[in-house]
Amino acid sequence: VVGLDKKIIALLSDFGTKDGYVAAMKGVILEICNTVKIVDITHDIVRQDVRNGAFVLATAAPYFPDGTIFICVVDPGVGTERRGIVVEGKRNFYIGPDNGLLMLSVQREGMKYVYEITNKKYMKEEISLTFHGRDIFAPVGAYLVKGIRPEEIGKEIFDYIVLSQERATIKDQKIFGEVLHVDGFGNIITNITFEDLKQIGIDFDIVLDIQIKDQAYKIYFSETYGKVRPSELLALIGSNGFFEIAINQGNAALKLDISSGDSITISKSYSNTNF
Amino acid sequence: VVGLDKKIIALLSDFGTKDGYVAAMKGVILEICNTVKIVDITHDIVRQDVRNGAFVLATAAPYFPDGTIFICVVDPGVGTERRGIVVEGKRNFYIGPDNGLLMLSVQREGMKYVYEITNKKYMKEEISLTFHGRDIFAPVGAYLVKGIRPEEIGKEIFDYIVLSQERATIKDQKIFGEVLHVDGFGNIITNITFEDLKQIGIDFDIVLDIQIKDQAYKIYFSETYGKVRPSELLALIGSNGFFEIAINQGNAALKLDISSGDSITISKSYSNTNF
Amino acid sequence: VVGLDKKIIALLSDFGTKDGYVAAMKGVILEICNTVKIVDITHDIVRQDVRNGAFVLATAAPYFPDGTIFICVVDPGVGTERRGIVVEGKRNFYIGPDNGLLMLSVQREGMKYVYEITNKKYMKEEISLTFHGRDIFAPVGAYLVKGIRPEEIGKEIFDYIVLSQERATIKDQKIFGEVLHVDGFGNIITNITFEDLKQIGIDFDIVLDIQIKDQAYKIYFSETYGKVRPSELLALIGSNGFFEIAINQGNAALKLDISSGDSITISKSYSNTNF
Repeated sequence: VVGLDKKIIALLSDFGTKDGYVAAMKGVILEICNTVKIVDITHDIVRQDVRNGAFVLATAAPYFPDGTIFICVVDPGVGTERRGIVVEGKRNFYIGPDNGLLMLSVQREGMKYVYEITNKKYMKEEISLTFHGRDIFAPVGAYLVKGIRPEEIGKEIFDYIVLSQERATIKDQKIFGEVLHVDGFGNIITNITFEDLKQIGIDFDIVLDIQIKDQAYKIYFSETYGKVRPSELLALIGSNGFFEIAINQGNAALKLDISSGDSITISKSYSNTNF
Repeated sequence: VVGLDKKIIALLSDFGTKDGYVAAMKGVILEICNTVKIVDITHDIVRQDVRNGAFVLATAAPYFPDGTIFICVVDPGVGTERRGIVVEGKRNFYIGPDNGLLMLSVQREGMKYVYEITNKKYMKEEISLTFHGRDIFAPVGAYLVKGIRPEEIGKEIFDYIVLSQERATIKDQKIFGEVLHVDGFGNIITNITFEDLKQIGIDFDIVLDIQIKDQAYKIYFSETYGKVRPSELLALIGSNGFFEIAINQGNAALKLDISSGDSITISKSYSNTNF
Repeated sequence: VVGLDKKIIALLSDFGTKDGYVAAMKGVILEICNTVKIVDITHDIVRQDVRNGAFVLATAAPYFPDGTIFICVVDPGVGTERRGIVVEGKRNFYIGPDNGLLMLSVQREGMKYVYEITNKKYMKEEISLTFHGRDIFAPVGAYLVKGIRPEEIGKEIFDYIVLSQERATIKDQKIFGEVLHVDGFGNIITNITFEDLKQIGIDFDIVLDIQIKDQAYKIYFSETYGKVRPSELLALIGSNGFFEIAINQGNAALKLDISSGDSITISKSYSNTNF
């Protein structure tokens, strides 16, 4: 058994950092279990944007040690009948609203069980209308740290919500994808993988024809930033394993006026013969 | 006695997160006591806005375990004769400037003693003009963790500063209040309580006449978000126990152009007979 | 030997807080060593601004206990041939890119050795092109916590990069300096020290002639904020030991339209005879 001081609770929310909401959750956790290590993933998820929360969670969760308890709150449905859930994955526990937020990460590590949170014994005595993060999810997470089994928190369910995920498609030697996320550096992260690219014969060190939001570009697909000059566009496989468009030492999304959901089409450029 | 690794110091300031100021305070604390758990409440209090700091502290402090040491720095008077204080509440310790910042939280938990910080033994050797958070409040907090009694830090005082708090007033079946805080979601948090509302016969599931900043609205007072459609205004009791105006999945303060200090008047709407 | 639970890793980056990048680094660290205490200095360094990162690190690092391991990532050259380094200072370890980011802090505490990071045994198995913070610097830091000696991480090097630092110069009873940093309060922090001022006979409580970005001001040089009225300009020695220009309870950089790198000239004002 891991000592309680070695257990980790990781928090993700769209609460921002100017209010006391995140700290109230931490207080509730520490009141129940004052030795747990609490790590913030981020509290700057785009407000009420469940897809953005699911994406960011999935970029961080795989790097945490086995047994981490993720408490995640992007919850536009709070105060309606949407359920709260505990998900037992192959490695970790995930706690939050049943709106798909948790499932992208869970699917990647492998799912075991989903439980609806119903046992009031593991909630705060008074449940506010609008803040289940503090009154339900935080205490449930702290009790899991203390060894409460998820079966005690509620019954297993099978009709939990999973967000639809558009995968990139391939047709006529073209890949049709979309922008998943624009990160803080302005890197444009797509849902296209290296495997997709290989299927139409694309490898590093060639020029690609890229159409993004009705605008056509020729962009060099590189293994390293060093191959293009500062301020120049390049395409690469980013740190999450997805095809990205970046500017060396610059902000690609700003320059190309791109945001999440924009469409992108990729093909090999004929100009490669002259490269 | 609680082990030192179970002791908690919680920090609140208006320092922002782009400078090294908060980290310098943490370094000072850990230099004196390297096992304490440090939790950030927020460092994004509106710059030099003592009332905003007092409000946010009061929304988080009640959720922390007994014995937490709060070090709070919103300090427009730093470098003048304003005093630094340690407050011993019924549950926790509060450290910061004597400008009212700490007192809203202390009054709610119950106050025992207020001490002026004067003993240089528990400060950094060199005290900067402008950064008592690092040179005075942080080390004092760390020494409290180590078991130094507050009496050793300075003499008890009785003329500490308390911020005036406007409570809502009731006249002619109307409640006259004000906006305490706009949170990061745009929820408009007032100084009106459920008890105030009950005094003029208001309960959930009726329509209220609300005048806010010279503009009149009819707003449904609901126990749950689910009763109004997305993008619609609703009134509710928020997670801090105050009357709030919100928009389901939207930003009420932005839409109504409201900020802290704006006045609000509430009465039962005649239209309820038709509801 | 210090217990592993007393060891501190302090993080600084320009990653911002809306993505999962910082959390991924923390996950990697905790996977290797789940008892270490992780402290954030800041992740809001101006994007890819190595000088800003070096300055902020230097304002925080001196306050941390001996043996702290600083992992710092402001890394516009990631993915080129720029090297990763571990620096052993007289008190602490510093890990990051070899671009000068670490050296301002190291020079102040005293340097012992610089090692190039080459031993793949202490990196993640897959190294992404763009995220050495997660795949190289984070694991190296965690292995140092576990007692791996820096000699095992790579060979000593001597041709590491040091940023040129403009020191203020003095000529004809004038000091010529520049703005190092504008902090979150709008305080204008220069590279001019109290020693520089004393060389031309400047002490507290006199009026200075200050030319900053082609605009001339007469500003009172004060030991305390209390000597000027709210909203009034004053000059002082800031908490980092540098000459600063501030506005009592206001934002000097905004009012004077100043940013990093702007030039500043100081001399005694003749008007002091009339003060």
